[in-house]
Amino acid sequence: MRRHQRRRGSPERETGEGMSQHPHLFSRYCMHCGQRLISAVPEGDTRRRLVCFDCGFVHYINPRPVAAVIPVSERGEVLLVRRDIEPRRGTWVFPGGFMDLGETAEEAARRETREEAHLEVGELKLLGVYTRTAPGIVLIVYEGQAIGTPSAGHETSEVAWFAPEAIPWGSLAFDSTVAALRDWARKHGHPVPDDLPSPADL
Amino acid sequence: MRRHQRRRGSPERETGEGMSQHPHLFSRYCMHCGQRLISAVPEGDTRRRLVCFDCGFVHYINPRPVAAVIPVSERGEVLLVRRDIEPRRGTWVFPGGFMDLGETAEEAARRETREEAHLEVGELKLLGVYTRTAPGIVLIVYEGQAIGTPSAGHETSEVAWFAPEAIPWGSLAFDSTVAALRDWARKHGHPVPDDLPSPADL
Repeated sequence: MRRHQRRRGSPERETGEGMSQHPHLFSRYCMHCGQRLISAVPEGDTRRRLVCFDCGFVHYINPRPVAAVIPVSERGEVLLVRRDIEPRRGTWVFPGGFMDLGETAEEAARRETREEAHLEVGELKLLGVYTRTAPGIVLIVYEGQAIGTPSAGHETSEVAWFAPEAIPWGSLAFDSTVAALRDWARKHGHPVPDDLPSPADL
Repeated sequence: MRRHQRRRGSPERETGEGMSQHPHLFSRYCMHCGQRLISAVPEGDTRRRLVCFDCGFVHYINPRPVAAVIPVSERGEVLLVRRDIEPRRGTWVFPGGFMDLGETAEEAARRETREEAHLEVGELKLLGVYTRTAPGIVLIVYEGQAIGTPSAGHETSEVAWFAPEAIPWGSLAFDSTVAALRDWARKHGHPVPDDLPSPADL
């Protein structure tokens, strides 16, 4: 899903360290009635939430699911795409993106693979779930046999196949990218560096 | 996470059929600046979104991750809890609930198991991911060895152990509950009814 340019009040604001935060952390107004939200502990709850004292709406801030696929070729290579968007423009990641309401995780993973790499994938096998707590992202990663020939899609400047021993560990996008590819490699008996680099986890 | 009672504008509105919908579908005002939202296709996007023409904020509606555990006893029985909240009050489900910002899926699954069944669980193994598209819920289910003796916690009227062949398929809460318990039973070689009932998937 493309995030378009915003003039002001960007929900993907970056701090000085470049750390993305959840866009709803900046909420000030009730999305139901437009009144100011107040920070308070709702009845029966244990944590402070953003509450509308006018209409009673509680603005729970939910982490956001991202669905992704590690496409694998017949030769056992994995497809990565080079990010052409911030954060971490220029680094490598497998295809994936925010789920839309109305689609399943598998459907979202296939759609994103189609959009970013013009590629179809066969049966999806669940590899793992990886939480990035700061921006509130829950990454759901599948692996699947690649069908067809990929090419760079939107949000992507380049696509490339990597043999398991040639995965560019030092140029991956996020900690969750490293963790998922590490789990994929170990699952299939491929070598993984002892000292895996930890990218700035945006 | 307890959802407290709301006076008006409840984000968990039920339709005539009792189908829960995503609370953000009812958004009318920009949470950043309080102006009215407009339905429009953002630049570079392909779908209509709720957009603020004043500050540029796009109100993406993300599905919400729910983390859950199927606790398993030393005898190979599974722990289910009887729901004491709507929707589907009185039906059986394994412990789980909405993730909070700042915790991982595993942490949320353990917290909910503690809150709803006063139970700890050992190492968590990922079982599956199940999307309920209508309310926009992505259910992440682990299995884990139960530690200690459970009792009914909040949002729960009763806890009980079920042998695999005694799982109450006809009294489970959601389609996703049936699907996850079916996958758990099959994974461990237990029988599953041929004609699994489909609860009203709220």
